[in-house]
Amino acid sequence: MKDPNKPGGAPLKVAVAGLGTVGAGVLKVLAGNRDEIAARAGRPIVVTAVSARNRDKDRGVSLDGIAWFDDPVAMAKDADADVVVELIGGANGSAKAMVEAALDAGRGVVTANKALLAHHGSALSARAEAAGAPLAFEAAVAGGIPIVKGLKEGLAANRVERVVGILNGTCNYILTTMRETGRDFADVLADAQALGYAEADPSFDVDGVDAAHKLSILTSLAFGTRVDFANVHVEGIRHVSALDIAYADELGYRIKLLGIARRTPRGIEQRVHPCMVPKTSAIASVEGVYNAVIVEGDAVGQVAFRGRGAGEGPTASAVVADLIDVASGRAVAPPFGIAAAAQQPLTPAPMAEHVGSYYVRLSVVDKPGVFAAIATALGAEDVSMESVLQHGRAPHGPVAVVLTIHETTEGAFMRALDRIVRVDGVLDQPRAIRIEAV
Amino acid sequence: MKDPNKPGGAPLKVAVAGLGTVGAGVLKVLAGNRDEIAARAGRPIVVTAVSARNRDKDRGVSLDGIAWFDDPVAMAKDADADVVVELIGGANGSAKAMVEAALDAGRGVVTANKALLAHHGSALSARAEAAGAPLAFEAAVAGGIPIVKGLKEGLAANRVERVVGILNGTCNYILTTMRETGRDFADVLADAQALGYAEADPSFDVDGVDAAHKLSILTSLAFGTRVDFANVHVEGIRHVSALDIAYADELGYRIKLLGIARRTPRGIEQRVHPCMVPKTSAIASVEGVYNAVIVEGDAVGQVAFRGRGAGEGPTASAVVADLIDVASGRAVAPPFGIAAAAQQPLTPAPMAEHVGSYYVRLSVVDKPGVFAAIATALGAEDVSMESVLQHGRAPHGPVAVVLTIHETTEGAFMRALDRIVRVDGVLDQPRAIRIEAV
Repeated sequence: MKDPNKPGGAPLKVAVAGLGTVGAGVLKVLAGNRDEIAARAGRPIVVTAVSARNRDKDRGVSLDGIAWFDDPVAMAKDADADVVVELIGGANGSAKAMVEAALDAGRGVVTANKALLAHHGSALSARAEAAGAPLAFEAAVAGGIPIVKGLKEGLAANRVERVVGILNGTCNYILTTMRETGRDFADVLADAQALGYAEADPSFDVDGVDAAHKLSILTSLAFGTRVDFANVHVEGIRHVSALDIAYADELGYRIKLLGIARRTPRGIEQRVHPCMVPKTSAIASVEGVYNAVIVEGDAVGQVAFRGRGAGEGPTASAVVADLIDVASGRAVAPPFGIAAAAQQPLTPAPMAEHVGSYYVRLSVVDKPGVFAAIATALGAEDVSMESVLQHGRAPHGPVAVVLTIHETTEGAFMRALDRIVRVDGVLDQPRAIRIEAV
Repeated sequence: MKDPNKPGGAPLKVAVAGLGTVGAGVLKVLAGNRDEIAARAGRPIVVTAVSARNRDKDRGVSLDGIAWFDDPVAMAKDADADVVVELIGGANGSAKAMVEAALDAGRGVVTANKALLAHHGSALSARAEAAGAPLAFEAAVAGGIPIVKGLKEGLAANRVERVVGILNGTCNYILTTMRETGRDFADVLADAQALGYAEADPSFDVDGVDAAHKLSILTSLAFGTRVDFANVHVEGIRHVSALDIAYADELGYRIKLLGIARRTPRGIEQRVHPCMVPKTSAIASVEGVYNAVIVEGDAVGQVAFRGRGAGEGPTASAVVADLIDVASGRAVAPPFGIAAAAQQPLTPAPMAEHVGSYYVRLSVVDKPGVFAAIATALGAEDVSMESVLQHGRAPHGPVAVVLTIHETTEGAFMRALDRIVRVDGVLDQPRAIRIEAV
């Protein structure tokens, strides 16, 4: 007699490429929660093959009885597996080759690779659909937060207006620590590197590239457009100073690196840059290595998701959730929610036409007439000030003047800044940070 | 040639029972976002039949070409429909009869009915599985927040340890307004009724029953146990006073009505009651009619979801998401994530063995010896104070004394309260509120 506690379906056989922290985590979760996972998947999920660089490294998980492949592409083609998990990383190279090989062989693919999807998402989606094979990537965006499923399925009834996310834990950790300690970027980055929260080459994280990869995936899911990483406006956090963080606090804001995708009359905005958000907003309270994504839909209003954005457990949670979807037969839809052939090309809204408010910090000589000239420069572009902040005086020396600017276009604001730079008595380059209403 | 923008699958035909706010909202969303929904569902979703009490009422949506049924059960049996949407409400009566009729006819069911699922969830799940028909109920818990999908699919890799939710918008609105205005419960409830935020008979909401219905569904999804509403410990918010809210604020807490399901060595706790939560916690900032659910899993850590818990748009968003799941073939798994036959009976952890911290407010005569007697009463049960708060003095008159109690068992705490009530100089019944670490 069949025991209902031991689902009797044929096991789902899984081949895992990449046995770093996340790969080992996937094996640990599959082993540790085996019974719960089998009950939810309707059948056992078993790892039949793995591929990694170093065969001898101790990863804290048993590889007994699991076939070893030196070449992940060979594994994708030849392993005794229904699904291949790609945890190699990188937009091209063996990650792309093995995903394509698996799909072409009609095998499902589960991947955490945001760079791959940002660059080749729509093409791989078409390939998966042609092969009738699932392609799932919950782990590619915001770690353990089920936001891919949330957008693609949970909020599928909605016309989405905006998606706002804290998508990079390294940047959020650095900005949080800068605010808490008053220390500057370079200093905090060095500590984060020592603690393992930032890579030796931090560029992908701190220059906003990783967040932009993830945003381009969310944009496609939200708006039904082709994945279009090339049209993401990207700025990182290297220029955020302790001074700006202190002024933000005084003005009632926190500085966060946000990824924002928004439907506008001029097209779809995709932008990653430091933002000031009201201290009282829910997203302002997302600190440290946490990620969060807010979705605004016409029916549902605002829905927010928050959780750990990276690390062994959260990422493994997302990878294994995808495997359970494949095992249970739920991973049937097109990978990006709508058929690749039905995805529209994204019409990018030009950044010059972005409408928003701004923070700007100037260094000026404290002498009569300078402020009047700045005000005239703003007025010449129809840009109006909301508030001015200046602490203390330094007759004839440099002082910091902080302005907040009422809603205007980015083009007008930038032209006004160009005029301000040329004002006699304005020193250095102004520092501007966009203010986002969330 | 097939136009990829117009998915060519046969339409999913839907019959809707109940055309109140939510029913009309479902029709509006299906009509307003028709193209997006068809693209995501892989085929059009069309309403072919409706049933409601009053045929002539203007609901702001066109019913042209849609068959009308006076009897929802007859509609469930006879309509030209693949799926029936049940928006009638109530644990029994025609809601239950029509859901059973639809499932027995092999038709899918989408419902927003938490009372029905709280009382008959596991039986209906077994019935749906036997019929091979989907039964989906995203709208039954936390309105537009995709928490049913989140628990059942998105976090399926995890062994869940705890679920904490603000599950009733009416209570959260009342508690938020009480805090903001300093007014008392009865007063704010009357206003909420006038504004339509609370029912004429508010009992289901303010006595915690509605939250308990929802919690019992979440518990089953989280722990793989049978839905067991009878074993939810339920207390409402009628006894929360403006005074307690003010003291909570002083102590660094907010008062929320929480639904909590927790795995303990003694079984599973299911409880709905007012809680003090730290002001700085994310859940404390969930105000007004918003709902939130926090899930703690072994791999993912803490994941939080937040959004509108009720109303036309959010609830319609959830109902239509379920319809899209059915249309796209994703609604394949057992309704509660694991097969009804594999669900374990829930072993309830006795409330007397609940371990937690407590707030307690006493009214005492301000005379020597009373406080020593209270301290002795606590000590006799091995219960220890964390803090004491008393403002001002009223020699020989009644004063409020507020204690917070270190973690102890509910049994010991209740025995200590019994001793305190008998202390000479303690007036009235003490008011106790559990403190929850979130």
